[in-house]
Amino acid sequence: MNGAQALIRTLVDHGVDTCFMNPGTSEMHFVAALDDVTAMHSVLALFEGVATGAADGYARMAGRPAATLLHLGPGLGNGLANLHNARRAYSPVVNIVGDHATTHRRYDAQLQSDIETVARNVSTFVHTSESTVELSADALVALAAAVGPPGSVATMILPADVSWSEGGVVLSGSGPTGPLVGTVGAVPDEDVLDAAAAALRSGETAAILIGGQACTGRALDTIAAIAAATGTKLLAETFPARLERGAGRPPVERLAYLAEFTALQLEGVRHLVLVDTKSPVSFFAYPDKPSDLVPDGCTVHRLAEPGDDVGAAVLALAELLEVNERTAPRQAAATPAHPTGPLTAQAVCQALGALLPEDAIVSDEGNTSGLFAPGATAGAPPHDWLCLTGGAIGQGLPVAVGAAIGAPGRRVVALEADGSALYTLQSWWTMAREGLDVTTVLLNNHSYAVLNMELDRVGADSPGPRARDMLDLGHPSINFMQLATGLGLHAARAESAEEFTEELGRALTTPGPSVVEAIIPSLL
Amino acid sequence: MNGAQALIRTLVDHGVDTCFMNPGTSEMHFVAALDDVTAMHSVLALFEGVATGAADGYARMAGRPAATLLHLGPGLGNGLANLHNARRAYSPVVNIVGDHATTHRRYDAQLQSDIETVARNVSTFVHTSESTVELSADALVALAAAVGPPGSVATMILPADVSWSEGGVVLSGSGPTGPLVGTVGAVPDEDVLDAAAAALRSGETAAILIGGQACTGRALDTIAAIAAATGTKLLAETFPARLERGAGRPPVERLAYLAEFTALQLEGVRHLVLVDTKSPVSFFAYPDKPSDLVPDGCTVHRLAEPGDDVGAAVLALAELLEVNERTAPRQAAATPAHPTGPLTAQAVCQALGALLPEDAIVSDEGNTSGLFAPGATAGAPPHDWLCLTGGAIGQGLPVAVGAAIGAPGRRVVALEADGSALYTLQSWWTMAREGLDVTTVLLNNHSYAVLNMELDRVGADSPGPRARDMLDLGHPSINFMQLATGLGLHAARAESAEEFTEELGRALTTPGPSVVEAIIPSLL
Repeated sequence: MNGAQALIRTLVDHGVDTCFMNPGTSEMHFVAALDDVTAMHSVLALFEGVATGAADGYARMAGRPAATLLHLGPGLGNGLANLHNARRAYSPVVNIVGDHATTHRRYDAQLQSDIETVARNVSTFVHTSESTVELSADALVALAAAVGPPGSVATMILPADVSWSEGGVVLSGSGPTGPLVGTVGAVPDEDVLDAAAAALRSGETAAILIGGQACTGRALDTIAAIAAATGTKLLAETFPARLERGAGRPPVERLAYLAEFTALQLEGVRHLVLVDTKSPVSFFAYPDKPSDLVPDGCTVHRLAEPGDDVGAAVLALAELLEVNERTAPRQAAATPAHPTGPLTAQAVCQALGALLPEDAIVSDEGNTSGLFAPGATAGAPPHDWLCLTGGAIGQGLPVAVGAAIGAPGRRVVALEADGSALYTLQSWWTMAREGLDVTTVLLNNHSYAVLNMELDRVGADSPGPRARDMLDLGHPSINFMQLATGLGLHAARAESAEEFTEELGRALTTPGPSVVEAIIPSLL
Repeated sequence: MNGAQALIRTLVDHGVDTCFMNPGTSEMHFVAALDDVTAMHSVLALFEGVATGAADGYARMAGRPAATLLHLGPGLGNGLANLHNARRAYSPVVNIVGDHATTHRRYDAQLQSDIETVARNVSTFVHTSESTVELSADALVALAAAVGPPGSVATMILPADVSWSEGGVVLSGSGPTGPLVGTVGAVPDEDVLDAAAAALRSGETAAILIGGQACTGRALDTIAAIAAATGTKLLAETFPARLERGAGRPPVERLAYLAEFTALQLEGVRHLVLVDTKSPVSFFAYPDKPSDLVPDGCTVHRLAEPGDDVGAAVLALAELLEVNERTAPRQAAATPAHPTGPLTAQAVCQALGALLPEDAIVSDEGNTSGLFAPGATAGAPPHDWLCLTGGAIGQGLPVAVGAAIGAPGRRVVALEADGSALYTLQSWWTMAREGLDVTTVLLNNHSYAVLNMELDRVGADSPGPRARDMLDLGHPSINFMQLATGLGLHAARAESAEEFTEELGRALTTPGPSVVEAIIPSLL
């Protein structure tokens, strides 16, 4: 058995049975080994950012890591932005980067570069395997690091000769981690619990801000019940990795992207209880505006940090407050009417709210144009909402790929905007190749609209035409229907609300992927 | 004057008047300043890899650096692969990466990451500017580092508040570098010169291997004259950054990509004289094959290394050998007939050889299908040939963008393959937006053909269908004509040699960009 075979067998034995890849020559033995270990589902991407973003989306929905396979330092570079997003999502990823053979390094061949240095930026664990016999053990340590908690990117650097050499062994399930059981996170100290409970009982205005594990399942129900019982405002972080929402689920308002609105959401709050999230800060800094969004005089209580045992922390707080999770408020079912008239961002979101099927997964990178989507879908059948955790655009389509593979049988909607779609458009080809049930809603306003807003917000004095021109995607205008068709997908283009609703309805009920391009005016 | 204005003025004052950008919020003051300093030509890219590759192509043709403008760590990540190629090309690049405001760093906001660590991998110089008043001086130091020699990537990290704050000053042309005059490189010691001269006079089989500065202008003429006068084989490195060739220029054979062929090219060579290139090594390692391609018993003479004064070294050797550069052999003009019949990779290259206009620039990322291109164009009118210096695919189209802007008035041909085009396809939109005279020849064989070859070459035992499937781009098949049209370009698709020749002829003589997709069988 060679190293590649041993590595893939080890991964599969421990539940990592999906690999998103864009391989090159140094990864050819890994690729060849796919015929020996057929339990590994390998998914080809045309660009590394698709592979890494898909691994993130997969982990968010499957709750376990996928592997990636990237080609040397440049391949890692191409995958870096979505590994950044995965890091911010606390998604477990086993990130495998092929390298030159160990014997080849000293020649500084054309593709040689310092992979470890680049990987360190996004990884909690970086290791270059130097020996075929140890590869299986290396994989188990990487897997343990990836699983956490919290989940993280663990990078294995795999020299070609370590991969191709004979002498591979497969460690059994009794390796360092066992089959995908992470360590147990910390539970809060009693005084933290007491302080949080006292704050929520104090009668002073309070808010609970949730993220991570607190946005799904029993933890969400429990924290929502606590908020309701204590009259506390419940908020989610701006971009949670996965938020369960819709009819029958606790309604949760997300913190706004714009600090001006966040200030309104947190106005008068004297106690802020954080559950698996960080204290709120503005996305960017602006001249003469604070970065820290906690109101003056507000006390911050950190009930659980990423990696803690969030479920236990929330239950302990509920017990202390004598709150039962079954008392959580539930969102009533309510879907908007089909929109009519000219197509706008609002009409697109309204149609989405009207048609979103049960158990859908929304990968949200709608940016400015998607602003109305959470409101329009609040009472839609229960669904999951996946956000741009790290702020690096080009995540939405890859995450949709991974979510569809990680949660088969569920409809995925990629709510996508023209500016962000163009970073990782190659995702569409993988959707077609794998026959994924992903419907892309492409909001085309012919601009980097968010930047037009930011250009004003940063206080730049009266931006001139040359600046505005750098944010304009309309010359030449981009035809996403043609781009989708060119990459092998069925696609349609809508210019009225009625057209859009009809095309979206067809796309959502037809198996396989398709794209509906919505031509809309910019909001800004 | 704010920092951004001072920075742009400083760059423009020192000849850096082109900036390839994909900005975000933290770069909005730089963008706003474009209306204050209108001498800076700003070129928008939809993806950072387009911007960095364009800066590389620009430098190769203009002989001076362009600037880039990238958005934080993820933007740098997206640009990293082509910065790797630029590094290998010794192209000078002033790589500007926007960052959060210095006051914002400690909050670890969503887009925060360690930019310096990532930049270090591709840069000879990395510096985070901490003060508005020092920004101009920082730019001059970065520029000096970029210009070298040898040219290199110099990364300036520009925090948003350093950019937006008032107090910027512009240092005059008497700054550390003056207007783009690099330091002078070293000349060879006399004993190195003597040894090289003795080797070439020895009567033993010798070869001269050139790269970098030795591939253009007077240095090329001189070294070709030396080779001819001493009966020495003249070879260029596999992927030179810029090779001047065609009718009336010295003919130079390039070292093969495949080590098996390189071995034939170097067979029997007892003396290898290196001029601005490294000793030849195989691109990748293969089981049981040597990485070092220098034949046993061959002595290597390093006449000039990257960064040395290559012109002086070559002239000194010519003087010692009493060779006049005017005696360099010259390629006779000869163009192939127009191809007929079924369209193949060979027919495409033949048509290119027949139609390539004078002073054309070929950005070559044709990979396997482009194999016949150097032969078919050897006797075409004089032109420049730009190669995949670092081996990171996704370079060809961005380099074509930069070459067209760096050498206005010349026709650029991007010889591109389906697999590699898909990494940085967004380049086409920038070509359309800027109205660049770039003709893309897209060789579509529906596969990663080079990897099918490599899968066999690495000695993987009888690759199976699951492995082959990872190299197959045909399911679904990709329609590049639609992709080009969707991005705003005129495009055509050819399936016979006659069709292709006609479309290529039209594309080469029509102002502005267009794409000719050639549907060909895979060579492999």
